[in-house]
This record gives sequence, C-alpha cells and structure tokens, in this order.
Amino acid sequence: MSLVRIGDTLMKDFTYYSPTKFVFGQGVVDKLGPQMADMGFGKVLLVFGRGSVERSGLLDKVRASLEQAGIAFVEKGGVRPNPEVNWVREAISLARAEKVEGLVAVGGGSVIDAAKATGFGVPYEGDVWDFFAKKQPIGKCLPIAAVLTIPAAGSEASGSCVISNDAENLKLGVSGDVFRPKLAIMDPTVTFTLPAYQTAAGVTDMIAHVCERYFSGVGPVPVTDNIAAGLIRALLEAGPRALEKPDDYEARATIMWTGMLAHNDLAGCGRSLNPTARAGGWESHGLEHELSAHHPQITHGAGLAVIMPAWMRYVWREDPSRFLLFASDVFGIEPAYDGSASQEEAVEQTVLAAIDKLQAFFQSLGMPKTLGDFGLSPDDVDSLIETLRISKGEVFGAFKKLTMDDARAIYLSAF
Amino acid sequence: MSLVRIGDTLMKDFTYYSPTKFVFGQGVVDKLGPQMADMGFGKVLLVFGRGSVERSGLLDKVRASLEQAGIAFVEKGGVRPNPEVNWVREAISLARAEKVEGLVAVGGGSVIDAAKATGFGVPYEGDVWDFFAKKQPIGKCLPIAAVLTIPAAGSEASGSCVISNDAENLKLGVSGDVFRPKLAIMDPTVTFTLPAYQTAAGVTDMIAHVCERYFSGVGPVPVTDNIAAGLIRALLEAGPRALEKPDDYEARATIMWTGMLAHNDLAGCGRSLNPTARAGGWESHGLEHELSAHHPQITHGAGLAVIMPAWMRYVWREDPSRFLLFASDVFGIEPAYDGSASQEEAVEQTVLAAIDKLQAFFQSLGMPKTLGDFGLSPDDVDSLIETLRISKGEVFGAFKKLTMDDARAIYLSAF
Repeated sequence: MSLVRIGDTLMKDFTYYSPTKFVFGQGVVDKLGPQMADMGFGKVLLVFGRGSVERSGLLDKVRASLEQAGIAFVEKGGVRPNPEVNWVREAISLARAEKVEGLVAVGGGSVIDAAKATGFGVPYEGDVWDFFAKKQPIGKCLPIAAVLTIPAAGSEASGSCVISNDAENLKLGVSGDVFRPKLAIMDPTVTFTLPAYQTAAGVTDMIAHVCERYFSGVGPVPVTDNIAAGLIRALLEAGPRALEKPDDYEARATIMWTGMLAHNDLAGCGRSLNPTARAGGWESHGLEHELSAHHPQITHGAGLAVIMPAWMRYVWREDPSRFLLFASDVFGIEPAYDGSASQEEAVEQTVLAAIDKLQAFFQSLGMPKTLGDFGLSPDDVDSLIETLRISKGEVFGAFKKLTMDDARAIYLSAF
Repeated sequence: MSLVRIGDTLMKDFTYYSPTKFVFGQGVVDKLGPQMADMGFGKVLLVFGRGSVERSGLLDKVRASLEQAGIAFVEKGGVRPNPEVNWVREAISLARAEKVEGLVAVGGGSVIDAAKATGFGVPYEGDVWDFFAKKQPIGKCLPIAAVLTIPAAGSEASGSCVISNDAENLKLGVSGDVFRPKLAIMDPTVTFTLPAYQTAAGVTDMIAHVCERYFSGVGPVPVTDNIAAGLIRALLEAGPRALEKPDDYEARATIMWTGMLAHNDLAGCGRSLNPTARAGGWESHGLEHELSAHHPQITHGAGLAVIMPAWMRYVWREDPSRFLLFASDVFGIEPAYDGSASQEEAVEQTVLAAIDKLQAFFQSLGMPKTLGDFGLSPDDVDSLIETLRISKGEVFGAFKKLTMDDARAIYLSAF
C-alpha cells in the first residue's frame, strides 16, 4: 500500500456544504408534509414524471401528506427522462402564475433536476436556458423537497442540474449550492419495482460519480479515498443482490443511500484543483452527455458503463499510482512484483485488470459493453464531437487534458 | 468476509441532517467574516478559551475578519476544558444584555460546546442546566459559527453538547439538530502547534466516536460500516504522522476532517435502534464522563483510551461477528480457521487481537493504558458509580445492557 502512496500531494482546500435533511426508511413518505411544515415551506408546485408514480399510488400518498400538513400545492407532471428546457419554461410560468414558494419533486434525477431548474428559473427575469449557456450565474432558488423514486443521479442532495435542449441538440449542466434540496424523503421500498435495467444503470451512474472525483488529477487524500472506495465496494455488493431479489430491502437501501453519498460531494473533499468547484474533470460524464443528447434511447448510466472504462484505458498512464490505489482499495488487486514481469508490466497488468473488473461488473448487471450495442456506428462520432466542442470547448478534463482528437479516439475505442 | 456478515439485519430507519457549511484549508480564517455576512449573521458573541488563541494571534485574525465584514461583536473568553455551567450562565446574561443574535466560537470542543449551551440558553427563560438535567427539551438556538483549533470532539458539526456542573459533580450531554453550527472554519495549519498529548487524545476521541456508532447493537450496514472503517484507517495512518512531524499538513488535515466526519452522524446512518436518536449506546463515553467529572486532570480522550478497550473486552461476546468485521475491515485481521484452534477459539483470538491492536495504537500515541496511570485506585470506583447512576440510570448501553455492577467490573478491569 505504501508504494501506492508515494508522491503524496496535499489535501486541497475545499468548501463542503450538504445542507439537505434526509429522512430515510420504510414508509417515510408520510413524513413529507410534517417535515415541510416544520421547515416553513409555503405553497408548492408538485412536479413528477410520466405516470409511474401515479400508477404506483405514491403520488396519492404525497398529496395526502401535503394536505394533512396544510401545505397548498398545484401540480405539473410530464417530466421526461433527460428533461427538456421547454417543460421547465412551462413550469416556471405556472409557478409564477400560481405564486408558489417552493417545489416538491417526486421522482428520480430527471424530475428533481426539472424542479431545480424551475426553482432557480422563477426568480430570474430572462430565459432559464441562459444559466445552462453560462450567460448568467445562478442567483436565488425556491426551496425544494424531493421524494426520491429512482436512486441514480444523486440529485436529491447534489448541487447539479442537467437539462436538455432539443432545438439545439444540447444537454448541459450547472452547479451550485443554492439549489440543493432542503429535504429528501428516501424510502427504499418504493424502488422494489424498478426495472432491472434502470437499477443497473443507476448503480453504474453512482460508481461513475465517485470515480469522476477519485480520478480528479489530485494525489491521494486518504480519508476521502477510503470513503470513495467504501462507497464503490458497497455498490459492488448491493447491485447484484438487488437484481437477484428486487425486494431485498438492505440492498435497495444501500443503493439508495450510497447513491446520495456518491454525489453530494463528500467523495470529493480535498480532491478539487479549484477550491470553489466540484472535484474532477467529469470527462466520462461529458462524453456521455453527448451520447444521450444525440441518442435519447441511451440511458445515462448505460452510456457511462461503456464510456468510463474506455476513458480509463485511454488515460490511466497519466497517473498509474492513482489506478493502483483504486485496484487495491476497490478490488483488492495488487501488482505482482514477483519477477515474472517488469515493474512496469506488473503495474499495467494490475491497472487493466481493475478496469476490466469494473467493466465486467457493469456487464454482469446487464449493461452494454460497446457503443455498437446501442446501434451506433463509428460514423456517428463526428456529430458527437461537434456538440462536445460547444459543451466543453477545445480542451477539457482534469486527470488528463483531452482534446477533441482525444475525445474522438475514446469514442472510437468504445466500439 | 461473508462469514462475518451472517446474521444481517436491516439498515435501520434514520434521519441525517448535517447542515454545517465547512470551509477547509490553509488560511481560511480570513473567510470567516465574509461567509458569516453571506449567511446573514447579525451581532455576535465571540467566545474563546484561556489565552492560547490570543497568544497565537488567531483571535486577532478572527476579530479583523469580523470587522472587515461589518459583523459587530462582543467577547467572552475563559472557557475551560470540560466547560462549566456557571460560565455558560454568565455568557447567557452577557448575550442578553448585549442583544447578540449569534455566536462565534474560536477553539475546540469545550469552547464550541460552551457556545452551543449559550446559544440555546439565551432564548430560554429558565436555567440552562434544566436542559442537561432533562427537565426541559431544547427549543430554539442562536446561530453558531465555529473556528476550530483543536480537532477531537467533532463539535464543529455535531448535534452534541456536554457541560460540567461542578457543584453537582456531574458532566452531562444533550443532543439536537437545532444547535449544530451553521458554519465551520477549518484550517489545519492552526493545529501544527497542538501539544502531542492533545493531538493523541483528539485522535483517540475521534476513533471512539466512530466505534460508539459501530458497536451500536445493530447488525451490518455495509455502506456505513465501510465509511466507519475508512475513517478509522485514515486516523491510524495520520495520527502517528502528526506526532512525528507536527507540521505535516496532510496528516493534520486528515485528522481535522476525519474528526468532523467521525461525529456528524454520517458514521451512524442506519445503525440506530431508535430512528430519532443517535446510533449507539455511548457506553465508553458514559463511563469516561464520570472519570473526567471526578478527576478533571483526566483528558477525555485519554480516559477513552483506557475505558474503551476495557469495555470492548467486557462486551464482545454479545456479538462476536461485529468485532470480527471490525478486526477485518480496520486491521486486516481474519480468524485462522486452520484447525490449530476451534472455531470459537479462533474467533476469540481474532477479536482480542483487534482490541489489543487498538489499545496498542492508543499507547503508541502516548495515551495511558490503565486507570492507575491517572493516579486512581480501585477505591475511587464507588464514587464514579454513584454519579454514573444519576447520569445513566440503573441500566444503560446498546451493544450490551450494562448494570451498575457491569460498570463497576469494567472500571475495575481497567486497572
């Protein structure tokens, strides 16, 4: 282990602020209204997706809890996966017309992100897309409560919000503390009915959230690294259990809680080169966002299952020690310095074995392995690069600076 | 590992709320005033201890930062280790007379706890000791900012506050979310000058905070258990480094950040038998509080270094699997089921080896091993039991219910 930590760098300065109140457990949906009343929520806009929360009866429980607590609300459903800016614009108009003072999101990351964008869009006079186009810094935001139904994006606590713009073929994200939810209601039993594919994509997304921070171009930060590896190991154990037995409470609870911790920035403390920004270059997310913006059939997590290992194989030589620590702490793989290979070969074998193990895990959950599995062909790469350039500029990334040529090579290596 | 996790129990329902904003890094004291202004702090009472922050120049930096940000303040120093209720009563009077709206604590756990007690004492008409005597539930609290100088107690983020009452020979704690600090300024460089003994006692206290939750009478909660073990491993690595080289930034930073995480309740999520209470029975803390209440020369962490291993040896048979997981995940010790001993013997050897390793680590930091090292004799135990009974009642504890006879046996075993 000490070999791995040669070349220690200092724990970087950071601000960590995760003010969400989490109410976690069986049946906690009933606590939504009372908690919101305690926290001083006024009239809210109740936001949800396209019917599953209605069919499951969850939305009725939410309505009943709000009513019993005396919280007035209006409703707007119809948030789609990869939520679109036009829905947000409509929601902003409705929120203003109804003079709501907060939002309740019932759903997964898409619904919560749609609520966040509505929340910081309402107090802003211009068009909400200005924030995503980086024409305008985010100011105020209405308070948000989230009832989580799909653990994956970590949006119930994160300072992240990603919205698609179909007209411009863009999917862009913003960061900020002001729109972190005030309250998150997390009942693992509501995830018992999640389809296997969605469960698997969620677990993949969570692991990616940890990895983006883990491979952030900063040397070891032992306490944060230990937490990160512990989160991933918990997911490696719980993911297959939830697929095998969808009502395994402990597996579902582990996935739900770990998914939050994977993205509330705990796993990035001390790992950011910029003390006012999130740790990591978010290379895999950047590459994946183009995929699902151009090809909406691609679930974000499934895209990551393909892109992240390809990115890792392309960049690991930039800092092999980081990947050796990952191999050791996540998978228990150590280089065999036994003379059967040179030290350099032993390192390469270990790093590639760890990346292979990670990709094999994703596949074991039913995730695809190549971009071809999504029906894409190498000819589709040019259009991805075209919008990636708009999203990220000519060069992006923290672990290794990636040019558009690098990005093209990574996409092509994923076929 | 799978053997260890036989007998899984469900992750328990919980609420997790750690709303403190943490500003961490070199020179961050300068950010105190601007951050407080951003957060809307009004006039504050500036609270500190007995001179070291004055001598080091830190207090002047704090004053300058407040002044530059336009935050008015009055001062009250003199908080002693194991802060006393009479100091708190004086501070409450001063805060009322000066009409302060918040508090800034510059110090370690004692100073922050004194600020907390003042903060929830001000809005209460009766005597502040009523809260500790459990005559009155805590209501409101003035907002608190903390500039941490001694990492140990975790008070900069915790919902804990412990105050001594000399007249009654009591040291009692209260819990609650309302007095968690809003802001914590954490600069590891201010801890470079901490004496070795205080550093060691702090690290011991942090490990105890994790262990009280780890051995809470609840079965495995993999994600929380992984985090807990990761926190302890980080301290096992950083503690000796900080003693060897007091200005080792990374070691100091690891200790400071881990100390917070050890006690903000992250390490207890899902591990509480009561969803509205902190995880754990806090047996070692309960036993230690009597020691330092009766014998003020005993530093809390040093008392824990003696009491916790004694408690562990007394109770481990209640759930050996829990201690086996601890042995494996913290120290990498696995039972040798190789036929050289019965399975029962192998388990006992492993558990006792882990407890021995933990105690040896405390000793390697310079902590005492026995109550005799503090100059106590077995004759002193009766008076400890007398006040323990007042603090805890006839029976207390979560991992194993302890009677006063059990408590006596644990104290006596620590000689």
